[in-house]
Amino acid sequence: MSSEIQFKEDTAGVTDPKGFFATAASADVRNKQDERLDAGIVYSPTPCSAVGVFTKNAVKAAPVSDCERILDSGTPIHGIVVNSGNANACTGTQGIADSLEMIRASESACSAPRDSFLVCSTGRIGELLPMDRISQAISIMARLVTQGATAGAGFAQSILTSDTRNKTCTATFEVDGKTVTVGGAAKGAGMIQPNMATMLAFVTTDIGVESSELKALLLDVVAHTFNAITVDGDMSTNDTVLVLANGESGVTLDTQTEALFKEALYKVCDCLADKIVADGERITKVVEILISGAASDGDAENIARAIGNSLLVKTSWYGNDPNWGRLMDALGYAEAQIDQYAIDISYDDVPALVSGDPVPENKPKWKEVVSKPRFAIKIDMHQGEGKFRLRASDLTEGYVDFNKSE
Amino acid sequence: MSSEIQFKEDTAGVTDPKGFFATAASADVRNKQDERLDAGIVYSPTPCSAVGVFTKNAVKAAPVSDCERILDSGTPIHGIVVNSGNANACTGTQGIADSLEMIRASESACSAPRDSFLVCSTGRIGELLPMDRISQAISIMARLVTQGATAGAGFAQSILTSDTRNKTCTATFEVDGKTVTVGGAAKGAGMIQPNMATMLAFVTTDIGVESSELKALLLDVVAHTFNAITVDGDMSTNDTVLVLANGESGVTLDTQTEALFKEALYKVCDCLADKIVADGERITKVVEILISGAASDGDAENIARAIGNSLLVKTSWYGNDPNWGRLMDALGYAEAQIDQYAIDISYDDVPALVSGDPVPENKPKWKEVVSKPRFAIKIDMHQGEGKFRLRASDLTEGYVDFNKSE
Repeated sequence: MSSEIQFKEDTAGVTDPKGFFATAASADVRNKQDERLDAGIVYSPTPCSAVGVFTKNAVKAAPVSDCERILDSGTPIHGIVVNSGNANACTGTQGIADSLEMIRASESACSAPRDSFLVCSTGRIGELLPMDRISQAISIMARLVTQGATAGAGFAQSILTSDTRNKTCTATFEVDGKTVTVGGAAKGAGMIQPNMATMLAFVTTDIGVESSELKALLLDVVAHTFNAITVDGDMSTNDTVLVLANGESGVTLDTQTEALFKEALYKVCDCLADKIVADGERITKVVEILISGAASDGDAENIARAIGNSLLVKTSWYGNDPNWGRLMDALGYAEAQIDQYAIDISYDDVPALVSGDPVPENKPKWKEVVSKPRFAIKIDMHQGEGKFRLRASDLTEGYVDFNKSE
Repeated sequence: MSSEIQFKEDTAGVTDPKGFFATAASADVRNKQDERLDAGIVYSPTPCSAVGVFTKNAVKAAPVSDCERILDSGTPIHGIVVNSGNANACTGTQGIADSLEMIRASESACSAPRDSFLVCSTGRIGELLPMDRISQAISIMARLVTQGATAGAGFAQSILTSDTRNKTCTATFEVDGKTVTVGGAAKGAGMIQPNMATMLAFVTTDIGVESSELKALLLDVVAHTFNAITVDGDMSTNDTVLVLANGESGVTLDTQTEALFKEALYKVCDCLADKIVADGERITKVVEILISGAASDGDAENIARAIGNSLLVKTSWYGNDPNWGRLMDALGYAEAQIDQYAIDISYDDVPALVSGDPVPENKPKWKEVVSKPRFAIKIDMHQGEGKFRLRASDLTEGYVDFNKSE
């Protein structure tokens, strides 16, 4: 007997599932003598199955390498320690030592076994972490989480960089009178594409599941959520999605519960991915690019990304000036099989191009669509069955102004 | 006996070689009731060898297809007819007919044989050409060029779209007392990458050369000039480079003259390519990205393009805030063989990273470099012998503002 999924945004996120604790502290990582929350810990006294998906950038930050090594070793995981404001990337051998020190300090302060903590950093590249202040923050946070702190919202706040708001959500479902919960927190902002971004996402759940099963589910979900968004086309050195499962709900993953759990995991990741695009640096619009009829899913993805990353396309969305010619130009260099005289394009449900022929009389209607803060561009290639959905943002003067200095 | 090459910018360009005539007219292509020059003809009474390099965009404008067909047929060429303000791209069967009509009208008005004119259009995508006004302009221009008009600068002006200035140059050299001239005109502005751009370039020369030899030289030159620049990462539907050679100098290409001619052709194309980047839409800086020591030339090119097209990198140049961490991030996703602990980066000759270790004490010096309107970023990958040079521009709020509407 299983129920439908209940879903809520702006929740405590990672502390909603049973047996997960979290808190945040101010380590003044940015050296600005302020009280900004910039360090966080998630902790489960019960050992967890854990899986991760990481940046495909060949330049990887030290904490990414540590996470990969620990997850590969298969040790049970008790927690995650995070800092924002500094990515600990391109920091040489000292950076490698600092990342490991964050892990060891957390384990020691929580009395957890060796290699039972994962670590993430996000922020500026190329500068060393202020390890004295971070170590102090870790010891304070460890005391709080081992005493039962459930400050999931504070944790969600501590991981933000240029984000303007918290990104959390929670899904629950019932199985034989027991409640399974999946909670998540994320940060995004810039560098959002094509295989994650300066994005971190942390998902906790109290279902019982083997790491190998969880990994397969996560890879499939990430492909359609965190890996199907773009803000500026840059891919960061630190992108990480981590999922911890501690089994405290008393429900385990089996043929009866798998579909529901996957749906809950999908809903959480999809919601967090959407929040990342919607909070992209100085954006004004979220555009869903729906490609269908491509020769393959890969072709559809290439087309969607060429469009979603074209500066000319993104600026025209910003200007409420839907120039479908720029869509055609971008899909033309997408390295996909195309017949320009077969393509249909519509803005929401307003056709702009039918079998390659413009429908100029619809222009007032499609201009109206593009003036909305959210709309869809639907393109049918008429080449096959391939499809892909990409969520993208516009590009504004504010983005340039924001990123022109550190 | 052959001399060194003489080179000049801001010349008459296409009419500098012997036996080439050109003019421009106002066809009011944009339907704004203004007198802007937006149609041009280049004409040689002597039949020419001709070669072209075209956009690799799968969505090709009608005039591109016409040029390819005519050049493939091998007929001698007498001229080129061009309009700006409308790309005649994504214009369906009417666009195909209009492109051919521009060719036929020019041939007829110049009493030139069938398929002896090439055609180019540049500007907005998806709208039909005002053929009545264009035909009228063609008949006026044909009269002028057949009567000996040498308005090369006017022609260069007529092909501009969002460019702010003319782009012309001329190279000459002497062989046995005879002068060989290579003249060129180009337009650029946005959509400049990776295999040409909304760019048109026209080069004329009075050397005598077979099309097949000329094609080989042009392909090599274009790879290092027009195909090694980027403004916004977009590649257009209309990019075209055309070279016409009429033999009027009395000098022919042979083992004695080939090196000099190739150098002259390179100088003309390199100068025009540089002018295109320097006049990119609302840019403030031209940055030369010099990659060396990559595992292959292809790797070096991937790295240079990842950097030159990264929004985060380009905005930091604009802000005079040289964030080398963003360079590392971009090269990390370039799909090249890298060892992040082997990389050297310098701004002009100021090291910022040596064997992957930051040199923070140099920061004031490299900030000074990035504040200049032109500077170089030199990256040695220490992986092999691969190298590539890419010229790129910064990204400004002005670009976004300029492109947010038609």
